[in-house]
Amino acid sequence: MPTKIETVRIEAFSDAVFAIVITLLALDLKVPPLESTVTVANLLDQLLHRWPVYLAFVTSFATILIMWIHHHAIFEMVHKSSTLLKFSNGFLLMLVTVVPFSTALVSEYLDTPAGMLAAAIYAGLFVLIDLSYTLLFWSASHQGKLIHPNVTKGTVQRFRRNYLLGLPLYVVAAIAAIWNPYISIGICFCLWIFWALAGGRRI
Amino acid sequence: MPTKIETVRIEAFSDAVFAIVITLLALDLKVPPLESTVTVANLLDQLLHRWPVYLAFVTSFATILIMWIHHHAIFEMVHKSSTLLKFSNGFLLMLVTVVPFSTALVSEYLDTPAGMLAAAIYAGLFVLIDLSYTLLFWSASHQGKLIHPNVTKGTVQRFRRNYLLGLPLYVVAAIAAIWNPYISIGICFCLWIFWALAGGRRI
Amino acid sequence: MPTKIETVRIEAFSDAVFAIVITLLALDLKVPPLESTVTVANLLDQLLHRWPVYLAFVTSFATILIMWIHHHAIFEMVHKSSTLLKFSNGFLLMLVTVVPFSTALVSEYLDTPAGMLAAAIYAGLFVLIDLSYTLLFWSASHQGKLIHPNVTKGTVQRFRRNYLLGLPLYVVAAIAAIWNPYISIGICFCLWIFWALAGGRRI
Amino acid sequence: MPTKIETVRIEAFSDAVFAIVITLLALDLKVPPLESTVTVANLLDQLLHRWPVYLAFVTSFATILIMWIHHHAIFEMVHKSSTLLKFSNGFLLMLVTVVPFSTALVSEYLDTPAGMLAAAIYAGLFVLIDLSYTLLFWSASHQGKLIHPNVTKGTVQRFRRNYLLGLPLYVVAAIAAIWNPYISIGICFCLWIFWALAGGRRI
Repeated sequence: MPTKIETVRIEAFSDAVFAIVITLLALDLKVPPLESTVTVANLLDQLLHRWPVYLAFVTSFATILIMWIHHHAIFEMVHKSSTLLKFSNGFLLMLVTVVPFSTALVSEYLDTPAGMLAAAIYAGLFVLIDLSYTLLFWSASHQGKLIHPNVTKGTVQRFRRNYLLGLPLYVVAAIAAIWNPYISIGICFCLWIFWALAGGRRI
Repeated sequence: MPTKIETVRIEAFSDAVFAIVITLLALDLKVPPLESTVTVANLLDQLLHRWPVYLAFVTSFATILIMWIHHHAIFEMVHKSSTLLKFSNGFLLMLVTVVPFSTALVSEYLDTPAGMLAAAIYAGLFVLIDLSYTLLFWSASHQGKLIHPNVTKGTVQRFRRNYLLGLPLYVVAAIAAIWNPYISIGICFCLWIFWALAGGRRI
Repeated sequence: MPTKIETVRIEAFSDAVFAIVITLLALDLKVPPLESTVTVANLLDQLLHRWPVYLAFVTSFATILIMWIHHHAIFEMVHKSSTLLKFSNGFLLMLVTVVPFSTALVSEYLDTPAGMLAAAIYAGLFVLIDLSYTLLFWSASHQGKLIHPNVTKGTVQRFRRNYLLGLPLYVVAAIAAIWNPYISIGICFCLWIFWALAGGRRI
Repeated sequence: MPTKIETVRIEAFSDAVFAIVITLLALDLKVPPLESTVTVANLLDQLLHRWPVYLAFVTSFATILIMWIHHHAIFEMVHKSSTLLKFSNGFLLMLVTVVPFSTALVSEYLDTPAGMLAAAIYAGLFVLIDLSYTLLFWSASHQGKLIHPNVTKGTVQRFRRNYLLGLPLYVVAAIAAIWNPYISIGICFCLWIFWALAGGRRI
């Protein structure tokens, strides 16, 4: 009698959460209200005026997509489940749902005197997210219990190292915000490029 | 010719409902509107002022995550389907979608003179949810028809006992609200810790 | 080399649509705004005053759940896919997403002079939904091409007959609305009980 | 020890995104607010007045359904995964989530002096979407690495040719908008009929 693959529902549940977060981003793209006198220049002006919304949309989308690809890469290695895995995965998902909020905060406040606070919260959230990936991966790979036997030790160590490496860099980004919010956001963006490439390497 | 596993769609449908409920919680995290004079102290004040929203977010998220883990644990044992199972699962899902409402009600009204009503509704909903888990598990394990043969009788009995045990405690919490809403909420929180641990035990 | 089961994605896509529609219903449950003087009687009054919203919530939820159970029952018999199946399934899903709208319309307007129009639209939507189930089932069972060989002819005929039977009854309900909206809604409710029982019979 | 099918999660994630986008469309169907004097004629008038919203709803739904059917048809041929596939799929999904925005823009502005801009943005988005399908299919079929061996070369070439053919036609539609927005929208609609038929051919 076949038993179900243990991680199927964790993956399905996570996929749905990532998908909802990434799709709801587009709700911020609002059609400008119809005014009494509408011209091409007028509408174009109204649309272009909202560029921070578009930038936040594309940034959030790319960010969450990269996090999903990493989640996917991790669970390609995992073939068993545990309670700790479920809770650390839940903690990760909770932080993922907050990303649109922190991104919107930065897009709204970056060029104001409160920009340093917005950048610090943005980087601070990614300190937590990096921690939650470290925790998720640790709960999966600890003593190798939940990892598929086909996965080499080198692969496991590379993943673990990457998440541990990201942690101090995000802390630096959060602290740098006090000094200059643009440098803080810049560090976060460089790290996204790193994660996109790191999530891409075949296992 | 392979037949489909009977519970796949019930699980997929339930996963999606849980995922949507848990993700929509983050929609309450709103970026404070940009004012004419923005300072770090100003924005920090506005963000900290919303602590009941954050508390409700984290509480609702943890609550729904634990309920999902229990749902997962139950369906790890179930390998067949029935009409009663589908309807009792639907009843459970309906109550799950109401949790953000009752949590928001408590977060808004707990420290007002109407706190006892909010706490009674909150605990009352969990009376119904505990009932729906009891019903779901009964419809799955009744005469052992839908349970996978690998599952021991002891495991089935432990699950059934847990849900039956929770029922009078939630009734007490709902009644205690008339006397003191904080005690009512306190009982509910203690029960969450119990459910988190009970859902965690390997089957 | 294994080929994928053809209907997996149609079912997964449909499950997600049903799940989102059914979960979004709970967004109408809103916490009453905090007023200057809050008392238990005051809050209770505000909550009870919204009974049509709760009724619409429970009704819509039950309705969509029964439709999902029927969709599930149909696809338990289908093991192949076709373009017509995908489009008729898409047409059905489009109508499902409109159910919360028509239910809210009835809950808002039933006891007004425009009640007959609201009831006629409500019943009229179910004329279309019954048609879309007839079409979906026809596109699945026509010449028996997409139906699993294990399914008996009698089962196929019973399903087909049920949907054909529902059609004239919903048309009667839609026409009855002109005379009395309550009779129209009453017919629809009786049919829901029929569908709940019909979807329940084991295949 | 069984390994998971590589594309399962990409498909599940994409299904969820398509399902959410297609379901959220119905949120625009709003019940008219209850006025002091309600008559049948009155309510009918208010409902009929919103015909552009209904048209946008049906159009967006059909559009996204056809795109989902194409996505489905492509992944019926793909049985392996790559990083490029994940990113090009993510790019496609991002554009899909923007379709309701561009459709709403056209439904609001088509008969205003700014209609040409709305039509150009609408057609321009489909230039990008056609490009993203071309990219997705190229990343899947390039050197035949990710395509199931059962798929014939002719099928692969037909798909590739269709997407390459659509590209210049959408560019023409976007440019035609400057001259006449109705011709631009007309070209897009003719292409939808083509995609519906092209997605329907059995592989």
